[in-house]
Amino acid sequence: MNDDRSRPSAGGTGATVVGLDLGGTKIAAALFGPDGAVLARHTRPTPARDGTAAVLDALAGAATAVDPGRLATALGIAAAGVVDPRTGMITSATDSILGWAGTALGAGLADRTGYPVACDNDVRATAGPELAALTAQHPGRGSLLFVAVGTGVGGAVAVDGRMLHGASGLAGHLGHLPSPEAAGLACTCGATGHLEVIASGPGIAAHYERLTGAPVDRLETVAARAARGDAAAVHAITTGATATGRVLGGLANALGPDRVVVGGGVPRIGPLYGDALAAALTAELMPPLRGLAPRAPRFGADAAVLGAAALTTALPLHHPGALR
Amino acid sequence: MNDDRSRPSAGGTGATVVGLDLGGTKIAAALFGPDGAVLARHTRPTPARDGTAAVLDALAGAATAVDPGRLATALGIAAAGVVDPRTGMITSATDSILGWAGTALGAGLADRTGYPVACDNDVRATAGPELAALTAQHPGRGSLLFVAVGTGVGGAVAVDGRMLHGASGLAGHLGHLPSPEAAGLACTCGATGHLEVIASGPGIAAHYERLTGAPVDRLETVAARAARGDAAAVHAITTGATATGRVLGGLANALGPDRVVVGGGVPRIGPLYGDALAAALTAELMPPLRGLAPRAPRFGADAAVLGAAALTTALPLHHPGALR
Repeated sequence: MNDDRSRPSAGGTGATVVGLDLGGTKIAAALFGPDGAVLARHTRPTPARDGTAAVLDALAGAATAVDPGRLATALGIAAAGVVDPRTGMITSATDSILGWAGTALGAGLADRTGYPVACDNDVRATAGPELAALTAQHPGRGSLLFVAVGTGVGGAVAVDGRMLHGASGLAGHLGHLPSPEAAGLACTCGATGHLEVIASGPGIAAHYERLTGAPVDRLETVAARAARGDAAAVHAITTGATATGRVLGGLANALGPDRVVVGGGVPRIGPLYGDALAAALTAELMPPLRGLAPRAPRFGADAAVLGAAALTTALPLHHPGALR
Repeated sequence: MNDDRSRPSAGGTGATVVGLDLGGTKIAAALFGPDGAVLARHTRPTPARDGTAAVLDALAGAATAVDPGRLATALGIAAAGVVDPRTGMITSATDSILGWAGTALGAGLADRTGYPVACDNDVRATAGPELAALTAQHPGRGSLLFVAVGTGVGGAVAVDGRMLHGASGLAGHLGHLPSPEAAGLACTCGATGHLEVIASGPGIAAHYERLTGAPVDRLETVAARAARGDAAAVHAITTGATATGRVLGGLANALGPDRVVVGGGVPRIGPLYGDALAAALTAELMPPLRGLAPRAPRFGADAAVLGAAALTTALPLHHPGALR
């Protein structure tokens, strides 16, 4: 893959804002100045088994920790689960955070913190600065396919300059398209044959187990065996990469992106993965898209809190008191 | 499929406008009054082998035929090929119209007719009134997947109330996503394993030939044999329908539509086709989308010229003289 890690500043929002990133194990918080500079950071564990009130309290605590002087004018949060930015609700979620589905994230966090709150799914939030970088570099080009391959396969889609949300905030679930490589395999969503089953980290490990009969605990084990020349490990990794590249190529034909970005932990396996993905993507593309090659994300460890902060200028704000 | 053919008026644009539909064999034209009433109609053959100047002349002639008194204030055209509405160019096209790729459709037609011209791909134009009907019935819902299954598999995608155009106007090519049912088969676009190969009318006929070794001239022959109980004919049809339903279901997971519409000639085979498509679509859907069922188009034979006329209020207009 092209490596475009020049790490430009994502620019600021013109205001001091709090960015929060809520994952299944960790909450990350940062305070950003008007120019985008990080003024403070804080992380704490997600109380994922203690109920949604405890999670909202922990998020509010993280916000206070980075902004004790109440400098911020708004708060943006990038959250796990399906998020509807318009209603501020968690539409749907796995149980990685107990009882998370149905939580009034926007209103609940606004009430606890006093800030106006913008909220979105973590992958869409992370993709926001990628979209901003694309349109800044190439005015008039605003179509982006962003896939995040990790424990699951998530994504974000922007077309004609706007991030797509879809009904109930569903847009971006790129892991639940049919994949020929996954034919007949049961998906976590209840359907069969979806990309995520063969292409996520656990999916690649499970494929290695099917090929060899040997249980493996994690993707890193498969990657290490592939590096030592284990043919089954190489096959499991390249199959996951190929399946991802094919689905991204098909989606590119359907949506006409100007850029394709492949993020998440799995692509860090290295060139074995990236080369197979790029070859499969290229082979799918219709003639007007030839030349489109996958890129690595532009923003590093701060991508999610940075994207969360940027939500405050891109999305509707939920204000304190709306729940009462 | 739900049949929602109540055929409501699509409403007018508030102005008198010409709508043109350019296909590989036929040009259709209509003059619409401010309330959407059809004031005049005209059709003529497409001079598809005579070069693009002849095609543009024929389009201008059709516009004059429906508006000899120059009542219209604008002209909208729904055209075959990949159309970029911003530039008014044909980005890419098959040779069903000789030399069509690269034609300056917007500017060329504006110069010949004197009208300001809005132009788009025929499937997106046809889907425009479907989107308008969705948002009129359900304010706030504006996400639509529209597929047209005929000689090829085309489509249109609207999300969050806006029709997607994508880079170079490419958005909507739903026929070029990977389909497990098409594994290994060569696609017209040069790739392999795409939906169109197994799901278009010619694709279903070719599948029947592969199953039986018996050549068939057209889809209607396969449909007639299926109606008489020919198991291979039934299999070819339901495979095409299933492949389409699966890809639509996967796209629904990725985009979160409020409505899915299945148009084009192939679905007119009847319930054998529609039932298989609906079952396959439903089986793919993630929990928040359960209940989404494919619908037939709301608008009949006039859909393309109606959609073309509506482009004049939705898209940038290309004005006479821009080429000089």
